[in-house]
Amino acid sequence: MDMEKIVNYCKNYGFIFPGSDIYGGLANTWDYGPLGVELKNNIKKVWWKRFVQESENSFGIDAGILMNPIVWQASGHVDSFTDPLIDCKECKARHRADHLIEGFTDEVIPDTMTDEEMVKYINDNKIPCPNCGKSNYTDIREFNLMFETSRGVVKDATSKVYLRPETAQGEFVNFLNVQRTMRAKIPFGIGQIGKAFRNEITPGNFIFRTIEFEQMEHQWFCKEGTDSDFYKTFKEKAWKFLLDLGIDENSIRFHDHDKLSHYAKEACDIEYNFPFGFSELWGTHNRTNYDLGRHQEYSKKSMEYLDPETNEKYVPYVVESSVGCDRLTLAILCNAYKEEQLENDTREVLKIHPYLAPYKVVVLPLVKKYHSDKAKEIYQKLSKHFMTSYDDSGSIGKRYRRADAIGTVFAVTIDDNTLNNNTVTIRDRDTMQQITLDIDEIINYVEERIKL
Amino acid sequence: MDMEKIVNYCKNYGFIFPGSDIYGGLANTWDYGPLGVELKNNIKKVWWKRFVQESENSFGIDAGILMNPIVWQASGHVDSFTDPLIDCKECKARHRADHLIEGFTDEVIPDTMTDEEMVKYINDNKIPCPNCGKSNYTDIREFNLMFETSRGVVKDATSKVYLRPETAQGEFVNFLNVQRTMRAKIPFGIGQIGKAFRNEITPGNFIFRTIEFEQMEHQWFCKEGTDSDFYKTFKEKAWKFLLDLGIDENSIRFHDHDKLSHYAKEACDIEYNFPFGFSELWGTHNRTNYDLGRHQEYSKKSMEYLDPETNEKYVPYVVESSVGCDRLTLAILCNAYKEEQLENDTREVLKIHPYLAPYKVVVLPLVKKYHSDKAKEIYQKLSKHFMTSYDDSGSIGKRYRRADAIGTVFAVTIDDNTLNNNTVTIRDRDTMQQITLDIDEIINYVEERIKL
Repeated sequence: MDMEKIVNYCKNYGFIFPGSDIYGGLANTWDYGPLGVELKNNIKKVWWKRFVQESENSFGIDAGILMNPIVWQASGHVDSFTDPLIDCKECKARHRADHLIEGFTDEVIPDTMTDEEMVKYINDNKIPCPNCGKSNYTDIREFNLMFETSRGVVKDATSKVYLRPETAQGEFVNFLNVQRTMRAKIPFGIGQIGKAFRNEITPGNFIFRTIEFEQMEHQWFCKEGTDSDFYKTFKEKAWKFLLDLGIDENSIRFHDHDKLSHYAKEACDIEYNFPFGFSELWGTHNRTNYDLGRHQEYSKKSMEYLDPETNEKYVPYVVESSVGCDRLTLAILCNAYKEEQLENDTREVLKIHPYLAPYKVVVLPLVKKYHSDKAKEIYQKLSKHFMTSYDDSGSIGKRYRRADAIGTVFAVTIDDNTLNNNTVTIRDRDTMQQITLDIDEIINYVEERIKL
Repeated sequence: MDMEKIVNYCKNYGFIFPGSDIYGGLANTWDYGPLGVELKNNIKKVWWKRFVQESENSFGIDAGILMNPIVWQASGHVDSFTDPLIDCKECKARHRADHLIEGFTDEVIPDTMTDEEMVKYINDNKIPCPNCGKSNYTDIREFNLMFETSRGVVKDATSKVYLRPETAQGEFVNFLNVQRTMRAKIPFGIGQIGKAFRNEITPGNFIFRTIEFEQMEHQWFCKEGTDSDFYKTFKEKAWKFLLDLGIDENSIRFHDHDKLSHYAKEACDIEYNFPFGFSELWGTHNRTNYDLGRHQEYSKKSMEYLDPETNEKYVPYVVESSVGCDRLTLAILCNAYKEEQLENDTREVLKIHPYLAPYKVVVLPLVKKYHSDKAKEIYQKLSKHFMTSYDDSGSIGKRYRRADAIGTVFAVTIDDNTLNNNTVTIRDRDTMQQITLDIDEIINYVEERIKL
């Protein structure tokens, strides 16, 4: 499946539209349409269920996007959350130096090079500008990816605030608040779903890389020495979760990081095989006590935990499990979209886990004139329990195809038997088999089959 | 109940913390803690159920916070989304001119006055500066409430983007995308839940007015002539929804706007009696075809709808129903918090609708040593179905009180009868009555009672 196809599918079926579409868009922004928002909400709901609700000793939070700017000094983002930019002196095009090198060779890994080494490599090898083909570049300058804005009516240094470039710091600065109010004992976790913003200038591959994105993240606070075991546990938990969502095991792989961030002791990604190749989907990081230690230093507030049993005091280690909600949405769409060859026909079908499907049921009156009243009545009853749609235009076959294409799990057809015997036929998206059910059985039948 | 009490309650029990707390906060920002995020998520969930899922012909979206800046020219925000600021020349304190007048008199309504009239009124009446007591002011200057930031690596006019100051424009710019992909017929609705940002400089009254807030909003697209009837329908729908959430009818009132916004034909608020008085909670607005008309003008894209039955073409009218999620959270907390005098005791209890309660059930082993294993087993079973907490410290009486104070609906006690007969006692938060249930009955018993 190629990228263009999935982008068009999302646009035509109401999953995802270009942001500010009628104004020609805004680069690297996308709006979720009626089906996309249901899919994304279902993903968030099941992540929360798995990582907060069902996880003993885990608690959710929802921290602000705007935080005190000192947070980003403590976290290191003000100083070093940068991209190495380089300009072509000939055509004025701007590039990421690391991307120029990556596009040119596999021999060196720009992540491990200094700015000076990258400039030297680019010039020594006369890497051509992808825009004009010449090779005449400026030096690299480091460009900070955080969006800045100003609070209050005067723009000065003290009024500067950032849009958070990651959600993690919200969990760290609330570590003590959560520990105290929940009377939590180490080890415990804090989970959060929320938006973050990065001033990305590189092309985004649809919703894979956007300037505004949603993270689902869980930080596990534990004692030094137990961290590596928990790191393994959370790697496996993420992997299992993806399989439970229906992701094909052959489409994902672990990738342990060669070069670790300054805060990390161990780090790995689960990569998904997107149409543009294997790329980062889910990160698990052993962040040590770096983050809480930095916040202790900058806030002058003790981040130590007092173990009530041993009376030991220590700054906890943190194991982070972090997945981009938009990337996971894209992976799930790519994974589920199929074009199936049937006996005398083909069909588009979104073979998505029933829990994730935007609509669980579509209600179809067989003949509009005769069956609409009863169908509306049933639609209203079902929609109190789960997302239900209604379709009365075109042949039943066409209506099945439309429902298949957007992943609707069951199609309930209302016909004369419904009027006479209170029964409906209910058709399964994947098997295309139909069975007959009593009207009163529909809700339980569906609810049993959409669990996760 | 006073404001300080509710703020402390929220902080001490893990509902809401000051934003960036360890750094001394960031004015008018708040972080939702473990209980607050569950409450808020439940509010969002039931709003979505009522306004999208169960509403025939309604569709959800989730549009970007960052939009093409022309959107805000079309909407009028660039030109006129401003506060009238005035400075005291003596002490340099900065005030909102309309607030100065409102604090001084009920005789005039600043909303109906021009900037010049306000300055004249302030000077003629020598309204004293609330900070220094003198009366020597600058002229008014209009301060735009939108937060600005820059995209890309060069800061210039073309790179300026705004953080959306309202979610409504996301629904308007996607009107055609939703109509086309859902094959929707007028009248139909678009609902959205999302964050918006306003550079407020006035004190916020806790989460009532914050620089970052979440809106739950539904726009109903209809034909001119039907708009006033739908306006009434949506006023009543909002009112009924609040009652269904358990809001006391005596704490809310309708307030029809005297002065209408430039786009509105009819507008009213439902006001809630917050600790600081009746204030806006939920707005219903007949926005006419103003918004779509403006977007048609600025985008040069036709916003007309073609009626498939009559072949008429027209730009639809819009009825907006909009409620602040944070304000509604505050109203629900104020409404539900009680200090009850019992026979020999008092208790704090959050008498919140069971659907909204952060925890549905707390599992309590009667004696830690004997009943913990069984209690953990039951906790794990229940937590797959709903938010469940676990408490094994202190007397049962104390544990009941803690659960009452945070609104936990049921307390399930595990004792010898559980080990011997597979029964538990289940205590109701509101009546404090206990009954005995079979372990296998708990899930159904609870699920039946938390519906909304």
